[in-house]
Amino acid sequence: MNELRKDYLLDRWVIIARDRGKRPTDFVQKTGVEEPGTCFFCPGNEHMTPPEIDRVEENGKWIIRCFPNKFPATTTEFGEIEESFLTKQPAYGKHEVIAETPNHNEHLNELSVEHIVKVLDMYSSRISEIRKDKRIRYVMIFKNQGSVAGASLDHSHTQVIGFPMVPKLVREEAEAAERYKKEKDNCIFCDIWRNEAKSERLILEDNYTVSFTPFASRFPFEVWIMPKRHVNSLGELSDKEKYSFAKMLKRILRKLHSSLNKPPYNFWFHQSPDDGDLHLHLELAPRLAKFAGMEFGSETVINVVPPELAAQHYREK
Amino acid sequence: MNELRKDYLLDRWVIIARDRGKRPTDFVQKTGVEEPGTCFFCPGNEHMTPPEIDRVEENGKWIIRCFPNKFPATTTEFGEIEESFLTKQPAYGKHEVIAETPNHNEHLNELSVEHIVKVLDMYSSRISEIRKDKRIRYVMIFKNQGSVAGASLDHSHTQVIGFPMVPKLVREEAEAAERYKKEKDNCIFCDIWRNEAKSERLILEDNYTVSFTPFASRFPFEVWIMPKRHVNSLGELSDKEKYSFAKMLKRILRKLHSSLNKPPYNFWFHQSPDDGDLHLHLELAPRLAKFAGMEFGSETVINVVPPELAAQHYREK
Repeated sequence: MNELRKDYLLDRWVIIARDRGKRPTDFVQKTGVEEPGTCFFCPGNEHMTPPEIDRVEENGKWIIRCFPNKFPATTTEFGEIEESFLTKQPAYGKHEVIAETPNHNEHLNELSVEHIVKVLDMYSSRISEIRKDKRIRYVMIFKNQGSVAGASLDHSHTQVIGFPMVPKLVREEAEAAERYKKEKDNCIFCDIWRNEAKSERLILEDNYTVSFTPFASRFPFEVWIMPKRHVNSLGELSDKEKYSFAKMLKRILRKLHSSLNKPPYNFWFHQSPDDGDLHLHLELAPRLAKFAGMEFGSETVINVVPPELAAQHYREK
Repeated sequence: MNELRKDYLLDRWVIIARDRGKRPTDFVQKTGVEEPGTCFFCPGNEHMTPPEIDRVEENGKWIIRCFPNKFPATTTEFGEIEESFLTKQPAYGKHEVIAETPNHNEHLNELSVEHIVKVLDMYSSRISEIRKDKRIRYVMIFKNQGSVAGASLDHSHTQVIGFPMVPKLVREEAEAAERYKKEKDNCIFCDIWRNEAKSERLILEDNYTVSFTPFASRFPFEVWIMPKRHVNSLGELSDKEKYSFAKMLKRILRKLHSSLNKPPYNFWFHQSPDDGDLHLHLELAPRLAKFAGMEFGSETVINVVPPELAAQHYREK
């Protein structure tokens, strides 16, 4: 059973994904190149994924498709936290995959804005659906693009994971936002974007959406994109806001893709947990530098690209 | 000037290493293989490093050599924290490199135990020396082995960094240890090793030193090595404790090296900050899996190798 385990000291949890059945020999470092296999996200190979959960069709063919992750990090067994000197809990939850296009070589930035809106709708719909299970406390959407960023398949896809707890980073953000709210009677994210929109870290803004390179960027060319209106979830976005968000995401990904030769990247959405108020935002992390002993040992990151320089790069045509 | 910047919400800091002078074009993804250049850690190339700080000699030649990092993450300018909506501070400190052997292809695990003891002595001596500057609040030793683990040179070396603050992870560990001490009147690390030495996560122990795979390992084959006696720093280890520690480190690295074909890894030491009591330990993180959107977006890590399986692997001859 996949298990959530708490660090001895810190409120930091790990999923021990025993069910993936890896053996030590699977980790022997290889020389040479692996042959690409059949892509089971491609049309015609639908039988190779677990049974489909949802799809969006166009002209009778799917253009977006959601199915369970074949190698889930979660388990179907539920259990409460067992607290003692060692603290653990079954890694109960849901772990799904959304194939964002039927075309194997098409990147997210190459889809039409209308198509990206439908992708956002699928994210939102999966979050709502999974949250109907009250044992699931938080659902996160995240994307791994490129092998260095952790993708095991090239075909453009995003993952959806439902946790039995609010994960550490989201909880810490929500707690910090709550403290700020008590002190200043304002949303910290509303203040962040208003501040950054006037700074040299601004990338783009329109009536609905704003994007900037965060002041303490941990990744070279890191970007945050957020709706200007204080909304708690993807589901709360109006059609206009969603279109604007999709368009800005596309422009930023396209610039990244073309100017840095298809770099690997991750992105994830943070939205409000049940018991918190977190302004919806997307964090985009190009994976152009490596976390090393410094980062893992101190949790202080070295970033050699000042965000002001990165913003200037994104603003250039 | 290299600058420490605080996250908008979290007490999470980043060094913006502007002085490295990277340009966006430096990040364009390359195809093909880069030619290895001259190794400036090798004997004969001493003039290529900044002026030497310290060395250990044998038969008139250096066997361990310490010099400033040519591309430091730190700066020589000191300044207090500037707190406002955006919080920052000059990244004042020291950043040094210790070449651990004159032989380019010799890995740490291939050095004699006596040589590794001298390496530990060099770590300890650099920490003491750097700590004489009272503007430096913490010194961390960390090692990047292999390109995937962030090493830019193959030649075996370790880095020493002095920070103007106690870094996040160390502070959080020290705070958690303090809370535990108040509650249980005991050191949590002493309790951890006593607990783990009786578990299936034990790797090795002798009179002085113990090693195990931590319960909530975040990395496949992660190992913690610590002295059994409650010591606060490398400098407090007796000769016998140091020899035992070096021997155990060598055995574990040798097993890792031989059984997984020289995998990339990081390790780092945690020891007490000025105002805290942290039992000295080494954390070894083989870099066999990738942190991806899940890890960076939620700070919940997926580890597909249960630590119990990893410990069994290390125990096998």
